[in-house]
This record gives sequence, structure tokens and C-alpha cells, in this order.
Amino acid sequence: MSYLLGSVGLFGSIFYKRWLHAQALELWSDKAMLASWIEIEIALARAQADCGLIPMQASEKMAATVSVDALDIGMLEQGMAKTMHPFVPLLHQLEKLCGDEAASYLHWGATTQNIFDTAQALRLKRTHALALPIIATAIEQAKYLALEYRDTPQAGRTHGQHALPITFGFKVAAWRSELRRMRDRLEAAAQTAFMVSMGGAVGTYSAMGGKGREVQQRLAAQLGLVSHDVPVRSASDGPMHYMAVWAMLATTVEKIAEEFIFLQRTEIAEAGEKFHDGKIGSSTMAQKRNPQQAQDLSVLARSVRTRMSQVQDAAIRSNEGDSTACSLADLAVAEMAVLGVSMLDRLASLLKAASVDAAAMRRNLDISGGLILSEAVMMALAQKIGRHEAHRVLYEVAQAVQDGAGGFAHLLSAHPSVKEVLSVAEISAMLRPDNYLGEAASCVDEEIKRS
Amino acid sequence: MSYLLGSVGLFGSIFYKRWLHAQALELWSDKAMLASWIEIEIALARAQADCGLIPMQASEKMAATVSVDALDIGMLEQGMAKTMHPFVPLLHQLEKLCGDEAASYLHWGATTQNIFDTAQALRLKRTHALALPIIATAIEQAKYLALEYRDTPQAGRTHGQHALPITFGFKVAAWRSELRRMRDRLEAAAQTAFMVSMGGAVGTYSAMGGKGREVQQRLAAQLGLVSHDVPVRSASDGPMHYMAVWAMLATTVEKIAEEFIFLQRTEIAEAGEKFHDGKIGSSTMAQKRNPQQAQDLSVLARSVRTRMSQVQDAAIRSNEGDSTACSLADLAVAEMAVLGVSMLDRLASLLKAASVDAAAMRRNLDISGGLILSEAVMMALAQKIGRHEAHRVLYEVAQAVQDGAGGFAHLLSAHPSVKEVLSVAEISAMLRPDNYLGEAASCVDEEIKRS
Amino acid sequence: MSYLLGSVGLFGSIFYKRWLHAQALELWSDKAMLASWIEIEIALARAQADCGLIPMQASEKMAATVSVDALDIGMLEQGMAKTMHPFVPLLHQLEKLCGDEAASYLHWGATTQNIFDTAQALRLKRTHALALPIIATAIEQAKYLALEYRDTPQAGRTHGQHALPITFGFKVAAWRSELRRMRDRLEAAAQTAFMVSMGGAVGTYSAMGGKGREVQQRLAAQLGLVSHDVPVRSASDGPMHYMAVWAMLATTVEKIAEEFIFLQRTEIAEAGEKFHDGKIGSSTMAQKRNPQQAQDLSVLARSVRTRMSQVQDAAIRSNEGDSTACSLADLAVAEMAVLGVSMLDRLASLLKAASVDAAAMRRNLDISGGLILSEAVMMALAQKIGRHEAHRVLYEVAQAVQDGAGGFAHLLSAHPSVKEVLSVAEISAMLRPDNYLGEAASCVDEEIKRS
Amino acid sequence: MSYLLGSVGLFGSIFYKRWLHAQALELWSDKAMLASWIEIEIALARAQADCGLIPMQASEKMAATVSVDALDIGMLEQGMAKTMHPFVPLLHQLEKLCGDEAASYLHWGATTQNIFDTAQALRLKRTHALALPIIATAIEQAKYLALEYRDTPQAGRTHGQHALPITFGFKVAAWRSELRRMRDRLEAAAQTAFMVSMGGAVGTYSAMGGKGREVQQRLAAQLGLVSHDVPVRSASDGPMHYMAVWAMLATTVEKIAEEFIFLQRTEIAEAGEKFHDGKIGSSTMAQKRNPQQAQDLSVLARSVRTRMSQVQDAAIRSNEGDSTACSLADLAVAEMAVLGVSMLDRLASLLKAASVDAAAMRRNLDISGGLILSEAVMMALAQKIGRHEAHRVLYEVAQAVQDGAGGFAHLLSAHPSVKEVLSVAEISAMLRPDNYLGEAASCVDEEIKRS
Repeated sequence: MSYLLGSVGLFGSIFYKRWLHAQALELWSDKAMLASWIEIEIALARAQADCGLIPMQASEKMAATVSVDALDIGMLEQGMAKTMHPFVPLLHQLEKLCGDEAASYLHWGATTQNIFDTAQALRLKRTHALALPIIATAIEQAKYLALEYRDTPQAGRTHGQHALPITFGFKVAAWRSELRRMRDRLEAAAQTAFMVSMGGAVGTYSAMGGKGREVQQRLAAQLGLVSHDVPVRSASDGPMHYMAVWAMLATTVEKIAEEFIFLQRTEIAEAGEKFHDGKIGSSTMAQKRNPQQAQDLSVLARSVRTRMSQVQDAAIRSNEGDSTACSLADLAVAEMAVLGVSMLDRLASLLKAASVDAAAMRRNLDISGGLILSEAVMMALAQKIGRHEAHRVLYEVAQAVQDGAGGFAHLLSAHPSVKEVLSVAEISAMLRPDNYLGEAASCVDEEIKRS
Repeated sequence: MSYLLGSVGLFGSIFYKRWLHAQALELWSDKAMLASWIEIEIALARAQADCGLIPMQASEKMAATVSVDALDIGMLEQGMAKTMHPFVPLLHQLEKLCGDEAASYLHWGATTQNIFDTAQALRLKRTHALALPIIATAIEQAKYLALEYRDTPQAGRTHGQHALPITFGFKVAAWRSELRRMRDRLEAAAQTAFMVSMGGAVGTYSAMGGKGREVQQRLAAQLGLVSHDVPVRSASDGPMHYMAVWAMLATTVEKIAEEFIFLQRTEIAEAGEKFHDGKIGSSTMAQKRNPQQAQDLSVLARSVRTRMSQVQDAAIRSNEGDSTACSLADLAVAEMAVLGVSMLDRLASLLKAASVDAAAMRRNLDISGGLILSEAVMMALAQKIGRHEAHRVLYEVAQAVQDGAGGFAHLLSAHPSVKEVLSVAEISAMLRPDNYLGEAASCVDEEIKRS
Repeated sequence: MSYLLGSVGLFGSIFYKRWLHAQALELWSDKAMLASWIEIEIALARAQADCGLIPMQASEKMAATVSVDALDIGMLEQGMAKTMHPFVPLLHQLEKLCGDEAASYLHWGATTQNIFDTAQALRLKRTHALALPIIATAIEQAKYLALEYRDTPQAGRTHGQHALPITFGFKVAAWRSELRRMRDRLEAAAQTAFMVSMGGAVGTYSAMGGKGREVQQRLAAQLGLVSHDVPVRSASDGPMHYMAVWAMLATTVEKIAEEFIFLQRTEIAEAGEKFHDGKIGSSTMAQKRNPQQAQDLSVLARSVRTRMSQVQDAAIRSNEGDSTACSLADLAVAEMAVLGVSMLDRLASLLKAASVDAAAMRRNLDISGGLILSEAVMMALAQKIGRHEAHRVLYEVAQAVQDGAGGFAHLLSAHPSVKEVLSVAEISAMLRPDNYLGEAASCVDEEIKRS
Repeated sequence: MSYLLGSVGLFGSIFYKRWLHAQALELWSDKAMLASWIEIEIALARAQADCGLIPMQASEKMAATVSVDALDIGMLEQGMAKTMHPFVPLLHQLEKLCGDEAASYLHWGATTQNIFDTAQALRLKRTHALALPIIATAIEQAKYLALEYRDTPQAGRTHGQHALPITFGFKVAAWRSELRRMRDRLEAAAQTAFMVSMGGAVGTYSAMGGKGREVQQRLAAQLGLVSHDVPVRSASDGPMHYMAVWAMLATTVEKIAEEFIFLQRTEIAEAGEKFHDGKIGSSTMAQKRNPQQAQDLSVLARSVRTRMSQVQDAAIRSNEGDSTACSLADLAVAEMAVLGVSMLDRLASLLKAASVDAAAMRRNLDISGGLILSEAVMMALAQKIGRHEAHRVLYEVAQAVQDGAGGFAHLLSAHPSVKEVLSVAEISAMLRPDNYLGEAASCVDEEIKRS
């Protein structure tokens, strides 16, 4: 049971393990972090050898000898306890691994944060690569769902009140549209966000023999990253920008999750997540079918969003480097990356496994006895008596209905201003939701064509 | 004195009036808000007339007769108190102003939030236009400052400790670089953020006779805005994205402001804001020259940043429309827009009026007796004995110096590993900051060429 | 229309005027702020005269001559523009008003922030006095509501799903209980939060001739405030603590507001706010009866809550005084105070004007065909076959019902494990909500007795 | 190396292990969480047996047979994957462990969240017990430090500028005073925050046979917790209140940490943390002595504070129970508890190991050539020519000094308004910091007497 100790929070606990995307979790684990630092050191040496700054041999020796699997983690922990430094003990192990000669050129001209920042950029780039197909799947699932329910009428609601009919496909098309915009923002941010920052201790490339900018550019090219213009260590706008898009994407996901929780409510019951035998909702209420997936998704999305303020605050960095801010940002970035991918993955599942009840949608549409179509009647009336007067009439009738004066269709056809211009049959047709779906279907059709 | 009542907060108080950019304040005032709503109604009618949805005459009559100056504000307030609706009382006044015939076609097929959201997009677009030359000025002032102090050595500091020399121009060049990236993000966001959303009550264009999408596109073209793909009222990602960039930009500005506050500290005194006779720092300490401009700038920047969480939270909207979230977002967006432009304006002034003391920079550089250049010696030594061993030697000597064992140059030249390979003269040269500025000047040169 | 300019945000706009409590708004206006500063200067002089530090005559002259109504606001604004100081120009006017002799002793030994902080404490104390009867009214309204609907069955819901029956009175009793606890927290915080801080420029009472602590204590006694132990200007924990309670209280209020919005939903319709003729929900949907009061209340509550992070951040103050943090906190405190009282006032109204539909509650209770009472059957069964086995049986049956296998009562009485121990009549009785309300009524009875 | 996987975030990583308080970490581990759930189930059974609700034998059997060490964690994980429920699989194992007869009465009348909430209250109570001696130690260390440097003059600074002299002991006394107030708030909150909530599925004690309130009270007495008045599951104000105090305490700690980082700055060097041989500041700058402890402390404090908004947001809970909000709050509460205790522990160490340099304080005090004492001269002058005129004179002279017109003492004694009333010797005495420390020493003396 010893592994249950130290298992606080979302990332180490057995209670949350199944919430998280395994590859994303692995990508931001201690092991992958160490591996990425080593990868950067090797790549840096290579770029420096290419510039003639250090011997090619040294660079090759490093590449051949150092690796995360060769590390002694126990010694690493001891070293950190003694030096109070997160990187120097690792450096010492790498020096031993590659032998004295090559070790002489290890970490040449770099400072710890250069390695950390560049390695973070690299892992963010990989996280991005991991996320893209998943968000594509979510967008595709939304497409299928939008198409399938393109013409299924449902109550549109504003401020909690029935407003006008939509179709369920229209609702989903709007989600898809927003998800696409978010994906576009994510891709746009990725163009500039992943920066190599190899300017040394204060960003001036002081220890690179005048070849610092060239080294950084070669390194960037090698790693598929962007070279930081003026690589001062107190700039963190690249990762901040990228994470800000994730925080925005999380609002979209949370909105969808909350909508599913709502649609699955006992009184609404229009859509929800699939149930499987053995799924248990409550230790005491055996009937419960909770929107568990959607709730967990909402937790994930909020957990992404809430960390953004930490990243933003940590962009205020003092002078040429600020370790407090760095630690805060690095922690939040890692957590957001894992939570973000996990959130997308679960969104795709939720959309795929959604169960939809068209009959319930119809039943709910009907509960207002036609009031939900008051605009339809108003617009017809507006053609005859003007929009303003039509609104006045409809207000009078619709409120009377709600005060118990009678049915909507009946009171309408009895109203002096209405009965002269609209027949009972016309009114009856206007009160059928299917006749007043506007351009819902066309919106779906156009949306799913967009890539 | 009655106007002093109701003057709570940043926007109405005489204590903060001079903090705010007058045009930005005007652009988001009640008057400008009402004017923009009216502008949208007129433009909507025009787009609908162009589509043949309403008579061209009605559209023209509206354009000719309604205007914000003709409103009766007292009646508006009474109307809102009675109806509890923020827009219908305005609509009634507009109907009266344009006469019965045209009034019949006013607000045709629209719902209140369509007008609000589109008018907000329009005012954001104008805010953007207002902001661009101001941020350009700030970037230009940074250029002048970077150029002027391109070669002025200054202590680079990390974690509050002297690290290595930089130049003041290099520090400013890094600010400029980040400001440019922020401007680019602002411009990129502006391409898609300002959306016309004219889908009616639930986004389906229910009351537009099948011509809704066409109306919206014409309207967008007319206003220079983007047409919302699936114009559901619960999507707010456009303005959220744009404001998120402002929040990020505010971190850059706050960082610069805080750096000025630091550099002006009594013990540092390397740079600060100009003093003018009559400026008072304290009611009791007559000597005080506080960094007032920078402090106010920091307040503005934080006031921008802190509102972002409200915008983000308010992106979680229920169903097809959610008035709570709308109100929260609309309030925060307006405030951020005014504060943002004001912040940029003040940043430009601060950069323009910065006073810099090169002698103080030199004096501070010298206080460590050369320790700030330990890397310079280490790198020279590394060429001879390897980087790792060189770090060990320098650590030994530099820590001994700090424990009071003697001067750095002296202990260095006495050290067995050093004296064999480096002469006293060489060490002495290495401990001169001017000799170890790395590529600071080149970084400045390259940065100021970027546009 | 000129007064519409500068009307950005919640506090100056005609669109939000009716949201705000007039007295609270007045208490935090520029005028009241100036008046409170003057009040503190007069009280300080009096305390100093009582200690023999300054002539009693000077103190009396000040009290007789200076007042907010005598100020020239235009000159004040000009003075602030010139000095860039928020207080010195006021001091100059006060000096003129009280004549040279008394002026010599004005602001004796004090620094600006002493006056600001103490005056803020005074206005917070008055805000507290304003708030107490309002929260008492809200608690009382909750009592009436709880009593009236003490026995009115309603569906209890967890995670959006029907759980077990409660009564509406029980729901309201829980609100009352939480409101009481919040009131108690508010009162407890008020015992220590409102501090006089009169230590001068750095908190050492440097200019008080050794009588500083005595002066501060007398001043505190005079004003009914607490004397700050070590009155350093960078401590703000008093107001932070008090505002933190308001932020917590706002969560309670927001929860109640959101519950009303939910209960008023078209499909739920169990409770809501009273409608009045002329209230308009939508510019296009005439039938709309939106939960306007509850939505506005939710906006107010969130506006209170969201400002807490600004107060908290601004508690991190540098050295012996930090103007940036002060400005940020002072702005947020003033806004929270006004919003807080306004929120309480509106909550009391909402509770008072709540309309409740017991029939709708009953209708919703019945929609699950008895499933909502599965626990009742399980507990009865548990007596016979053990709790665990009983849960298993109920799960089997309840899920079968939801998969369409038949009615709950029917399937239950057909189940082998059930039919042996429970009769059809017994099962039928168990599925009546009124028979399974637990101790709901007793909870109400006990709650309303608590003061 | 496999244990390095899944090590994302502060709690599982080898890079942060030494930051965290081992006992606090253990108290919030999965193991302790499971143990506390089991403890609550046993205690509940006991309370129910005492009320005659279930057989005493069953209760005793449970107590004798179930324990966290007997659990099969692998099965638990499988069970959670299948049921998607965090508690029912544990319940099944407990049922097996205690045998059929006792199992029949396990979890009687309870719902999962009752167990979770009550167990959280229990662990918070234990966290509180853990924290109290640590905060007491921090307060005691502050006392020693305040006493030792009671009379050591130091520049007092406001807005980054020299203001007036204080003593270092005075600065520390102010920290101690604030820490005491925070401890008092923590203790006050602890009186009511830790609640037993055992009302069953919706809070009505539906399945407790009318003895629910009695059971809950007995349970509360047994566990040393408070009985929740109306135990609805959507109330979380108890833990929210307690955590809000931790968030406030974190601002105090962060302020102290940031002050240490400042005081250790190269140019200030007045105080800092002890250095030990082998501690490394930088991988490239061998001279670096970074304020590592203080920076880590600042990270911990901000990590506590930043989670408060999540707890606050999660207090908005829907209906009678809301799993999304619960998960978010539970995660944040656990993390804050561990981080909070760790933060206090590190604060105590930092205060204990602080190194103080009185000579550096003196040196910095002197750099303004006496300007820091302008108030001393002003107050002396005020006795002769009035405070207002004295401020004018001092402003004139002090600004002239800063414009380079000469030394302060010299210009003062040459000024017509001064030379008539103050002698050169008097001025000279006034410009000695030791003569103008106000009541700093008395403030220290009084503070350390407070308990």
C-alpha cells in the first residue's frame, strides 16, 4: 500500500487515474521531463558542434552515452537535497555518463532555465501533436450528431425559459462551430508559442563566443521550434499564449458538458450519456443514472481553466529571471497539458456515446401549449399591423394565457386584432414547431461542410 | 457636489479621471452604447431592405430620423424600471421617432442580445483602431530607448541576485520584442473576434423569412465585421479571445511597470520617471519622489488582467441564451477596453519620459567586486580544464569571497587551477563588465529592425 | 446627455442604477469619501488635543470650520493633476478653511494612507451597520417561506437526477441556516476588522512625540474602531478578512439565486419570482417571463465574489507601504461594499416575493413513477434481507424499469426477493412521497427557532 | 523508473518531494482517505447502535474486522472502473470483511457524500492539530528575531523609496502581529468548520427511522466535530470558511517571503537565508546565492492562495447535491491542506535561519545623505512655523538636494526659514536615524508580550 502515500491531488491518486489520458500523463511525468532535458542538452551540443563552437566528437559522445534510463534516481534526489538545485545533480550524472572529455562541453553556454524552457516547449509541441487528432475526432463526432438530428425539433431556451424551437442538430452544429474556432486558435498559437530560449544566464548569449544567435537558430531548426527573438528569461508569453487558448477551449468543453448534464435531468431527459449495466449512481439510491461522464468532464474543464490565472500571474517576472514565477508557471503548464488532452478525449467519447430522445424533445416542446411559438404569430401579424403593435397584442394574449385565462390558440383567435387577419387554421399551423425552425437545417448543412 | 454621488469605482470618480483615456472612456459610455445600438438597428434595416425583406423606404426613414441625441433619457430610465428590460423602452422611443410606418419594420427578426452583441463587436473594433497607434507609439519609444542605451552596461539580475551584465538597451529591446508579439496577437485576434450575430431569438434566423444568413452577411460587410457561422447566443468566444489577448498584453505592461518601480528604488536608482516641480510624493515626507506613473500603470494593468476571469467564467452559458453570463461579460469587456487603452497610453508616456542614470548602473555593477563576472572566468577556464571542473573552481573561489576570505581577483589569481592558465591581467580584463556583454548590442540592432 | 459620458461599469450607468442600494452607493461615493477623510482629520486632532500633543483650540477650530460642503471640487481636481497626489490638494483646502493657526496642527504626525485606511474602516463599519438589518430581513423572509412550505413535498435532486423527496420548506430552511452562519461570520469579522492605523509614515508613530500609541487608542475609542497593534502600512488583513466573508456570503446568495432560476425553468416551474403587468422578457418573444430578479441577483453575487481575488492579491505589499496594492484593494473594497449590500437587499426582496407552485412540485415528483422512492423500499427490504442485498435487488428492478421492462411498483412486487416480504399495499405506500420525508419537518421546526 | 510515471504536479514529483510536510502529505494520501472513510463508517455504526437503530453486535463486528490494511487495492481500482462509482466498490470489500450479518447494517441510512464530507472534516481537524504547533513555532521565531533586532535601525521604505527609519525588530514584530491574528482566525474558524453531515441522500435523514438528528449528534460528539444544523449536501460553507483563512494566512506568508527575497537582493543585502557549503545557485554562475528557501516558500504560499477561487466557485451547488462541485472542492481542499502545513513549516525554518546584517542596514540608511529624515526636521520646524509651512520648506530643500544643488544638512541650515530657528547642531542631530525611531522599540516590547 506504500504507493498510496503521496497520492494527493488529481495526478497520483487511484481515484482519478482513469480520468487522465495515459500518453499525456506520461509526456509530463518526471521521467519524460528528465528525458526531454537530456534531449535538449544533446541537441544543444550538436548545434554547437555544427557551429564549430565545441568538438563534434564531444557532441557525438554525449548522444551515444547519456540517457534517462542510465540515471540513478536515488542519487538525484540526494543531490537535490544537498545542492537545493533542481538541475546540477542531473548534470553531474550526465558528466559521468559521457566521460571527462565530452563532459567538458556539456551544457556549454547554457543556464538551467534555458534547458527547462526549451524542453517545456518541446513537450508542449508533442502535447499539441497528441491533441490535434483528438480534437479532430470530437469535431467529427459533433458532425455525425448534428447530421443525425439535423431536423429533430427541440425547445430552444434562453434564461431558462422556453424561447423558440431549434433542432438538436442545430445545437450540436453550434458546438462544432465553436470547437473548430478553438482548434484554429490552438493551431495559430502553436505557430509561435514553442520557443527555443538559449541566451544563457541573462539572455545575451554571453558564453557562446559570439555564435549564440546562430546556435539558437540551428537548435530551433533541429527541434522544429521557433527561435526566441530576444531570449530574456523573464519572457513567458509563448507558453502563456498557448495555455490561454487551452483555457478558452475548456470553456467550450465545460459549456457542452453542462448542457449534457442539463439535458439528462430527470424532468428534461432529452439527451444524455449511455448507461451500462453495473454502472452505479448512488450507494443508497439504486435508481440513479447520473451524468457521471459529463460531470467528470466538467471537473476536467474547470481544472484546466482555473490554472490559467496562475500562468498569467506568473508572467510578471522580475529583472532577467525569476525562479518563483517559473516554478508556478511550469507546474500549471504541465497540469493544464495533461488535463487538457484528457478533457478533449473525454469530450470525444461523450459526443460519440450520446443518447438522444427525440420523443422527449417533442414532449417538452409541447408543454407550453404553443406559447413557445409566440414569435411566429407575431411576425405573421407584423406583416399586417406592424411589428410593434404585433408585439403588444402577443404580449397581451401570451400573458393572459399564463395568468390562466385560457389556451393560447383559443385566446389568439378570439383577439380582435388577430381574428381579422389570421384564420384559426393559420394560427394552428403557426403553433407547430416544425413550421418555425428558421434556417436551422441550413445552418447544419453549411457547418458540416466547413473543415 | 451632487455629481460626486454615484462615483464609486475607477470610472466615475474624480480621483481616477486622469488615469483614463478620454476617447476610450467616451467609446464605452452609456451615450456611445445607445448610439451603437441605434447604429446597428439602422444598419440591420438597411441590410434587410437590400435583401428585399423590408421596404427600402422604411430603412431610409429610420436612418433619417432616429439618433441618440433625440432620446429622452428620463423616460428611458422610467421605462426600464417598469419593464425591467434594458432595450424595449429604447425601442419604443425609436418607434416614435421614426413614425408608425417605418417603426413597423424596426428590429425586424432581431432579439435584444443580437443588437447588444453586434454593437459590442463594433465598439471593440473601434477600440482596436484606437489602440493600434498607441501601441505603435509604445513600441517606437522602446526602440528609441533601446537604441540610446544599446551599449550602457547594467547588472543583469536573476532571482534578485546579480547574475551577469546586460545593457539597458538590451533590457528594453526585450520589452519591445514582447510588445510586438502582443501587438501581433491583438491584430490576429481582431481578424475573427468582431462578429455580427443576428440569428434572432435562438440563432436560427426564425423571423427572417429564410433570408437570415444573407442579411447577416450583408450586415457584416456593411459594418466591417465577421459573420458568425452558427449565430447561437450562448457563444462568446470571439470577444473572449480578443480580451484574453488584452489580459496577456497587460502582463507585459505590468512587468515593465514593476521593473521601473524597481529600477527607481532608492538603492538602485538606475532609471525612473521624470520628476516635475510641484509633484508631491507624500503628505509627510517632503523628500519623496515616488514612481507614481509606474505604480498607476501597474494598477491599470492589474485591473485589466483581473477582469479576464470574469469574461472566461461568463463564457459558460446555458442553453441558447443566458442573461446572467451576458451581463457579467459585457460589464467586464467594457471595463477592460477602457482600462486597456488607458494602460497603453500611459505605457507610451512612461517609456518616453524615462530618465536613465548610466553612472548608477555602473556603480551597482561594481558592488560585487567582480563576482558578477564569474561566468566569464569560468568559460575561459573551461577552455583549459573543462566546463565542469571550471564551475567547481569558480564555486570554491566565489563562495570563499562571499565568506570574507578576500577579493575575487586576488583569490582567483592565487588559486592553483587558475594561476597556471590565466594571468592576472587576463583575469582583470575578464572582470570588466564591458568585455562580457555577449550579443546584447546585436540583439538590440536586430530587434529594432523588426516591424 | 453629457452626464452619460464617463458612465462605464456598474456604478455610473443608467442601465445598472436600479440594481444598487442607494445608501450603500452614497456611503462609498467621492463625496462620502472626502467627508470621511475630513472626519478622521478632525477626530485625530481631537485625540491629539486630549493627549496634550496639540492645542485644544486648534482642534476645536478645525471641527468648527472644515466640512466637505465647503470644498472647491474644481480646484481639488486641478491640484491632483499638478501634484499627482490624491490627498495633499485636499489638505491645502482644509488648511485654508481652518485658518493659519489651526492649520499648523492639521494632519499632525499622520501620513496620507493613515487617513485613507482609517476612513475606510469607518465606512466599512457603517456598511456593516447598514447590512445587518437587511440580512436579518432576508433570514426572516426565509423563515416565513420555510414555515409556509414546511410540509410541501418536492423532488430532492442530486447531480441533476431525482434523488428522494424533500419539502420546499426544508430547502429554504437550509438556506436560512447557511445565511445565519454567514451573518455570524460577518459579525465575528466585524469585531476585529475595522482598525485605526495611525502610525505615521512607516508605522512607528515617528512624529507623535512619544504619544502615538495613546493617540491611536483614543482615536479608536472615539470612532468605535479597533486600535492596530503594530500599525505598519503594509498590513491589510483586517479589511481582507471582512471582505472574505462577504465573498463567502455571495456564494450563498448566488446559490439561492441560481436555484430560483432553475426552479422557474419552463419544465420545472415549481417556484419563481412574481410577475407584474408591464414586465417584459424579450423584445421578440412576447410570452417570456424571465427570472430577471434572480439573474440580476446572480450577477451581483458574482460581482462581489470575483473582486475577492483582487483584495487577496493586494495583501502582498512591499516593505512599509505599497501604493499599487493599496489602490487595487481600496477600489475593490469600495465596490464589494456597495455590491454586497445591494445583493442582500435584492435577496430579501426575492425571498419575499417568491411564488411557489405546490401542484407543480407534486407533478414533478410523480414523473419517475415511484423510482424516486427506491431508497424507501430498499430500507424496508434491508430490515429483512440486509442492506447490501436490498441495494442489489433495488438496482436490478430500478434499472429494468428504466430500460422499459415495466412499472416500478409492478416489477417490485413481482420480484422473488421482494414479494415474499413486502405486500403490494406496503409497496404502494412506500412509493408515496409524503410517507418518506424523513425529518424534513423537524429540521424546519428546529431551524426557525435558531436566532 | 516506473514510479516516475504519473508524477505530474507538486504532489508526486521527486522535484517537489522535499517541499512538502511529510505528515500532512500522509494525512491526505489515498491511504489516509480510505482509512478515514472506514473510520466514519465504524463510528456511524457505533452511533446508530447507541441509538438502538442497529444491533450493537453488528457495530462491534465492523470495528473488529474492517481496516484499510485489509483492502485489495487492485480490486478497488477494477471496481471503480466498472461501476464508475468512487465508493461502492470499497463498500463491497468492507461488506466481505465484516461478514454478512454485520454487513447488513453497514452504511445504514448514509449516502456516499455523507461519508466523504465527514471524513474530510475529520482530516481537516487533524490538519489543524498538526498546524497549530507549527504556526506557534513561527510566531515564536518571529519573537526572538524581533527582540534581537529591536533597536537595529533600518530604512523604512514606501513605494520603493526611502521613507523614514524603522528597526528590523519592528518589521518583524509587525509580521508576528499579523501571524497571531491569522492564527486566531484559524482557531475561530476551526470552532465551527468541521461538521458532521449525515442527513442521507438529500439531508432529511430519510433512512434513519426518525433518529437521524440524534445519530448525527452522537457521531459528532464521538468524533469531536460539529453537527450540521440542516445537513443538506449542497452546503459547503464550513470547509470554505476554514480554507479561506488558510488563503489569507498564505498572503501573510507570501509577503514575508517576498520581503526576504527583497532584503537579500545584491544591492540591499540586509537580511537573507543562511548559506551552506554545497548549495548551488546556478549551473553557470558560480557566485550565486539565491534566496531559494524564500522563493520556494513564495511558491507554496501562492499555490495555497490560488486554489481558493476553486473552493469558492465550488460552493455554488445545484439542488440537493452536485458532484462536479464536490470533486472540485475536495481536490482543492486536500491540496491546500498539504501545501498550507508545508508552507508554515518552511516559514518557521526561514525565520529561524535568517541571517541579518546590521551594518548593511546602516549603510543603506545613509545613502540618501539624511533625506530619509526630512520628516524629523519638518516636525521640529512645524513647532515654530506650523506644519504646512514646514512641509513647504522641506519640500523646497529636499527637492533641491535631489536636483544636485548641495547636501541636505548644508542647504537646510542655509535656508532662511530654517536657520533662524534651528542650529546646525540641532539639524545634524535630527539627521541621525537613531534619534528618530519613534515608538518602534515600544511596539516590539508590547507585541512580544501578546500571546
